Amino acid sequence: MKEHHFKIQKKCSTTKARLGSLKTAHGEIATPFFMPVGTHATVKGMCSDDLEQIGSQIVLSNTYHLYLRPGLDVIQASGGLHGFMNWKRPILTDSGGYQVFSLAKLRKITDEGVRFRSHLDGSAHLFTPEKVMDIQKVLGSDLMMPLDVCAPYPCSRKEAERSVEKTTSWARRTLEYYRKNQQEHQILFGIVQGSVYDDLRKRSAEEITGVGFDAYAIGGVSVGEPVEEMFKAIECVEPFLPDKKPRYVMGIGMPDQIVKAVSCGIDMFDTCIPTRYGRHGSAFSRKGRFIITNMKYSADQKPVDEGCGCFVCKRYSRAYIRHLLRSSEILGLRLLSYHNVYFYIKLMQDIRHALAEDCFKDFMTNFLNEYYAQMT
Amino acid sequence: MKEHHFKIQKKCSTTKARLGSLKTAHGEIATPFFMPVGTHATVKGMCSDDLEQIGSQIVLSNTYHLYLRPGLDVIQASGGLHGFMNWKRPILTDSGGYQVFSLAKLRKITDEGVRFRSHLDGSAHLFTPEKVMDIQKVLGSDLMMPLDVCAPYPCSRKEAERSVEKTTSWARRTLEYYRKNQQEHQILFGIVQGSVYDDLRKRSAEEITGVGFDAYAIGGVSVGEPVEEMFKAIECVEPFLPDKKPRYVMGIGMPDQIVKAVSCGIDMFDTCIPTRYGRHGSAFSRKGRFIITNMKYSADQKPVDEGCGCFVCKRYSRAYIRHLLRSSEILGLRLLSYHNVYFYIKLMQDIRHALAEDCFKDFMTNFLNEYYAQMT
Repeated sequence: MKEHHFKIQKKCSTTKARLGSLKTAHGEIATPFFMPVGTHATVKGMCSDDLEQIGSQIVLSNTYHLYLRPGLDVIQASGGLHGFMNWKRPILTDSGGYQVFSLAKLRKITDEGVRFRSHLDGSAHLFTPEKVMDIQKVLGSDLMMPLDVCAPYPCSRKEAERSVEKTTSWARRTLEYYRKNQQEHQILFGIVQGSVYDDLRKRSAEEITGVGFDAYAIGGVSVGEPVEEMFKAIECVEPFLPDKKPRYVMGIGMPDQIVKAVSCGIDMFDTCIPTRYGRHGSAFSRKGRFIITNMKYSADQKPVDEGCGCFVCKRYSRAYIRHLLRSSEILGLRLLSYHNVYFYIKLMQDIRHALAEDCFKDFMTNFLNEYYAQMT
Repeated sequence: MKEHHFKIQKKCSTTKARLGSLKTAHGEIATPFFMPVGTHATVKGMCSDDLEQIGSQIVLSNTYHLYLRPGLDVIQASGGLHGFMNWKRPILTDSGGYQVFSLAKLRKITDEGVRFRSHLDGSAHLFTPEKVMDIQKVLGSDLMMPLDVCAPYPCSRKEAERSVEKTTSWARRTLEYYRKNQQEHQILFGIVQGSVYDDLRKRSAEEITGVGFDAYAIGGVSVGEPVEEMFKAIECVEPFLPDKKPRYVMGIGMPDQIVKAVSCGIDMFDTCIPTRYGRHGSAFSRKGRFIITNMKYSADQKPVDEGCGCFVCKRYSRAYIRHLLRSSEILGLRLLSYHNVYFYIKLMQDIRHALAEDCFKDFMTNFLNEYYAQMT
């Protein structure tokens, strides 16, 4: 395995947080980092130049969606997902497993893989551990996820156990195929499952790290469980993850959750929260989240987040963005999504800066105090 | 009146086309020009930087919509429409009359003005010639339209006659109020009505130019009439419009119609076609308009319009834009709107270039041949 891909430059002296860098086929990424979610080969409302402009180091896209539409032939003809989206920096793709379980119809898990029908047209498909590696080869992803079984929440112990077993068995097949399939320029993650059961989390972590991957992800979180359960899972699994490999908690979270998860030793994050909340009028600011469509902002000439240096905050007022959203104008969705994604990217830059100066603990305290202040 | 606002630099030696410039409070505009339509204080999908980047000299916005939402208090608090939209170049606003007739409920025309109920919340309002001048004063428009009565199509002779009479009577009140109201830094247009009746068109043109405005508009076109009727109205009215004043045909049109109208001596155009058609998957190119969501473009790596220099054509393929539109992604609407508006702006630049070189007639022939080629 390619340990040299990931370098830890500095460890926080008071928390488990780490500052590092991850080398990929499309450039080096400073860690910890956040990945904006580009489900259909676009971070909703934003073009690739916008993402570069806000300093996004990487985007995440979804294997399940791209496989169904536009389909692999179109992506292949475009020179992979990078060419299709006109995005020159790294891309992480998931395995599609999560979407098969949450979106597809008539899914059936067998030892071979998972059969399902497309949520778009009902057509029948089979994802196997090998097939999702083939797909991600065509996509040209820099970081790849293996097919796993993500247990829902709530979930019986028996169901969680089956998800752990299947995930481990598929992880072994994935790694074997990955080697044969000459994909080693694409960094492969192992995924830990186990739901809310500490002993299953521990077992899964031991089994997956036993198989041996380039990087590790904690899956089966952010599936509807209480925040406490999410952090319990992170804290349970983290000690089993090799210090020298990148650690990714899939699908989280709110800004305060990300800061806390960094303090637990996590390096990578993704969530559609900044764009999804933006489309519904929620604005992120250092003083907490607020609903910009509220009446009180109707003539507010301040930028979304005072002191924010983003393109949107330098040009447009809360009053204008509120008006656009209330008028169902595309530009409103676009501007607020842009600001919110910038907010997440800038947060990670601030976190890395604090780690470099070894003042992350203070940074976290100050950030959370300011972020929670208006909620109390 | 301020004749010096408008200068004709060159006249075409074979058609009625003119090359000129129009001075406004927010800078000089080269004529002939096109105005992208920003109904709710945004050209749909585009931010003010986009419009600057594509070289748009001016935008048009709608008095009726802005008056109802966000309302004048919000615009006033934002330092007028320029501040609200963060747009530094000129703005033309209509009088709101057209929207009152096409959108509002329970409208009733009296000598005083037009009473109507908001299409948003049913609230009762009155627009008078004086009131729409007051509104446009708050908006801070560089170019203003007076309240008129736009006859629908089809329209009886009697109805057309009433529309001409009311339009002239309100035009007189408008000009008087405009002088008293100290709005002379805002260029005021007179609007010619008359529907499809040549003698009424002629009468309206004589009455309105008799009142005496800074610039003239031909209204009551592009309301559903056949293209031949539209050009008949233009050709009927144009000889009555003073040579030394700008001439604006309201609400047209397709690219080929704009080129032809320039040859009839028209200087100004507006239409929501580039953005509206873009949102529905219609792409403008020098080889004609095409539906980019068609199957045949699914893996097409070419830009929307080969040889186009716009941001979108330099970065994204037809395949990618087709995929975005089919996936109902905001970015698809945004990118195709951007390209289409660029196409219109660039067309006007090409027209002005041809006029400067006195080869407009050849330009028109070549443009129309190429534009129509695929349709035959």
